[in-house]
Amino acid sequence: MAIYMDVHSGMQGISSDDLVAAHQKDLDAEHTEDVHFSKVWADPKSGKVFCLAEGPSMDAVRRVHERAGHPADELYECSLTVE
Amino acid sequence: MAIYMDVHSGMQGISSDDLVAAHQKDLDAEHTEDVHFSKVWADPKSGKVFCLAEGPSMDAVRRVHERAGHPADELYECSLTVE
Repeated sequence: MAIYMDVHSGMQGISSDDLVAAHQKDLDAEHTEDVHFSKVWADPKSGKVFCLAEGPSMDAVRRVHERAGHPADELYECSLTVE
Repeated sequence: MAIYMDVHSGMQGISSDDLVAAHQKDLDAEHTEDVHFSKVWADPKSGKVFCLAEGPSMDAVRRVHERAGHPADELYECSLTVE
């Protein structure tokens, strides 16, 4: 499994309820792809949303977001992590 | 304290050692600003690096990265989080 970060743009004004609902759509859609969206951070002012996921491939992560109705604008495989 | 995500671009080919060393520079510089850089994710292929930080203000986070020698290309205050 690899780690992925995706970025959504243009989400200015997103509310906490909107974000929770969107994340729930990912959780509902992810099991068919062996993906897990673990964390989401959003900046309603700039409209940026960052999603952290684990999964078997970039295509699998992309498909989950597409199936949930919010394809990502950018998607990166983060092979290096420091925590 | 607020949560910040910043993005560095153009870091193609960054190694694990490079990333750990850069993060250590943030850790060495952050205490003067009451900031903590908690996690970093990097994609050496695209050159994107994402840093997650907590701190009292966007300017404080920006100053730590500048003092560490690697100012961020983008910096967002993420007032919404789902984990």
